[in-house]
Amino acid sequence: MIKRISERLLLRPQDLKPLRDDFTVIGVFNPGAVRVNDEIVLLARVAEKPRDSRPGFIGLPRWEPNGKVVIDWTSKDELDRADPRVVRRKSDNLLRLTSLSHLRVFRSPDGGSMEWTQGSVLLPASPMEEFGIEDPRIVEIGETYWITYVAVSRHGAATALASTHDFVTFERHGVVFCPENKDVVLFPQKVNGEYFALHRPNPNSHFGPPEIWVARSQDLLHWGQHECLLRGNAEWESDRVGAGTQPVLLEEGWLELYHGSRRAEHAGEVGAYSVGALLLDRGNPARILRRSHEPIMQPTADFERSGFVDNVVFPTAMTKQRDTLSVYYGAADTNIGVVEFSRKELLSALH
Amino acid sequence: MIKRISERLLLRPQDLKPLRDDFTVIGVFNPGAVRVNDEIVLLARVAEKPRDSRPGFIGLPRWEPNGKVVIDWTSKDELDRADPRVVRRKSDNLLRLTSLSHLRVFRSPDGGSMEWTQGSVLLPASPMEEFGIEDPRIVEIGETYWITYVAVSRHGAATALASTHDFVTFERHGVVFCPENKDVVLFPQKVNGEYFALHRPNPNSHFGPPEIWVARSQDLLHWGQHECLLRGNAEWESDRVGAGTQPVLLEEGWLELYHGSRRAEHAGEVGAYSVGALLLDRGNPARILRRSHEPIMQPTADFERSGFVDNVVFPTAMTKQRDTLSVYYGAADTNIGVVEFSRKELLSALH
Repeated sequence: MIKRISERLLLRPQDLKPLRDDFTVIGVFNPGAVRVNDEIVLLARVAEKPRDSRPGFIGLPRWEPNGKVVIDWTSKDELDRADPRVVRRKSDNLLRLTSLSHLRVFRSPDGGSMEWTQGSVLLPASPMEEFGIEDPRIVEIGETYWITYVAVSRHGAATALASTHDFVTFERHGVVFCPENKDVVLFPQKVNGEYFALHRPNPNSHFGPPEIWVARSQDLLHWGQHECLLRGNAEWESDRVGAGTQPVLLEEGWLELYHGSRRAEHAGEVGAYSVGALLLDRGNPARILRRSHEPIMQPTADFERSGFVDNVVFPTAMTKQRDTLSVYYGAADTNIGVVEFSRKELLSALH
Repeated sequence: MIKRISERLLLRPQDLKPLRDDFTVIGVFNPGAVRVNDEIVLLARVAEKPRDSRPGFIGLPRWEPNGKVVIDWTSKDELDRADPRVVRRKSDNLLRLTSLSHLRVFRSPDGGSMEWTQGSVLLPASPMEEFGIEDPRIVEIGETYWITYVAVSRHGAATALASTHDFVTFERHGVVFCPENKDVVLFPQKVNGEYFALHRPNPNSHFGPPEIWVARSQDLLHWGQHECLLRGNAEWESDRVGAGTQPVLLEEGWLELYHGSRRAEHAGEVGAYSVGALLLDRGNPARILRRSHEPIMQPTADFERSGFVDNVVFPTAMTKQRDTLSVYYGAADTNIGVVEFSRKELLSALH
């Protein structure tokens, strides 16, 4: 781990109102973040759960194409609890999420009070998003902000693309990485004439450890030339890995923070999520120059250690001011935090 | 099922020589096929297995980057047998294939004797292909034959692209669909300004039944706008589905034959593979016009019912002569067969 220059809890569920009275906000986490003029803009995942409870039943929420939210009340006898986030129907092994996520914009003066003003709300808008939209990442390319986010449905977890100029209105561009694929981050400029993305296919590979891949594009909409970038070899990254923040261009190369999780000790638990770092070749982001062999950040603060899922730090955005890097992240699948690292110290942890 | 006008066994393992003396050919199956001038050209998957046996051990073959084949002799005590094709290492659940596949060209005068002349051999050529290359499909676009094939490695099963003008020399274009993704077929022309492909992400979806998807491209190398085309809802297609033949353009629409498999009754078995048919909109192949609710073809002949994997018909190519459709397919993961159907009768089985 490297030293946190500062650490701040930015947003908690109790700071937010649910979209409807019969729901309660259980998480505001995993935010995309960019600096826009003199502001920091967050696009955060907000997870809500039915407020009502019925003994012996779990209320599984979903969006219908007409924009209505439906709660499928399902007998607990029919379900296995995979972990706090997911239940599995015993009869056919189908998964459902126990909460329903959408995205909300929050703005704050950069470097100021970190008082947040809530802005636009992005709701599920297609059958591919019926179980929610999650974990956005943002890059600025030219005058457009491009947002990759996870679209969850009966078809699995795919990654879709949206764009905006102002974080007030958004354009949707459909599914760019088919299921199962999450944790897609775009590079903020073309490199040698091509756009690059990091992505995470194959969450439960039958052939080996979890992996982060790289793909290339001419238009951000169509992707190819897929290559494996990294395998989660160490114990702290042996269960899952995934790209985290938008990559930041330094003199030394592209700096990318990613998450890794360890295998849970018991069924129904989730292994701790930590943060690793990569330095990628400026001229060829498919090439790793240096890599952190130990996590640079682990769950240590109370708000990271305890929540909807305990012991999770999940980096989703990074901004740079001179020699300081601000990392925005989800904490315990419940809260949003930001930590500051010294650029120099972070790079010195890479080998 | 619909009537087979004719049925022929075209190639069997005993018709082929292995690539090296210490291996034996166990299958020649799942061929791409196209008509080239006055010939039928097959590009077939050839599976080989070490000839040697060591009591208590299984020899697991793989390619090394230097072009050598290595056999990893592994104690049977360390392995679970997932099915005849696959073993699973108990310590970490990693999968390995029990055979190693490459691709071979076979040519025959069209409509003639069906005596086959062997031509070029395509070998694994990248670390993404270390466990073999499999199940090619071919389309002719302009003066180029484009080949999608499965590349299997420690990274899983991905789909790569190659091209040729003559089936003598081939150009490789890398991975176009990242793991897990198989059964990719290209449409033989642009439709409304875009290339289309059918693909099969998400083999063991946690959220629902198996699915065939459609994607779009401008250049065949980069793919996006992913949409679900079909779900395997019936019992005969409840375990796996996947696009099969290259689509053939008829007046009524794009005709596509696909495979579906039913769930195995016992662990370590493979459920029977049958053939279904789809009619897709001429102007928008992402739209199903009609679909066979029952299989149009099931394993009935001896060479389809008994082999390396029993009870498999796996369609991989289709050609049309007037009102007759010839379907080339893998039989029992061992042989290549061809059947003829009446176009009219096939279409009348779609609802």
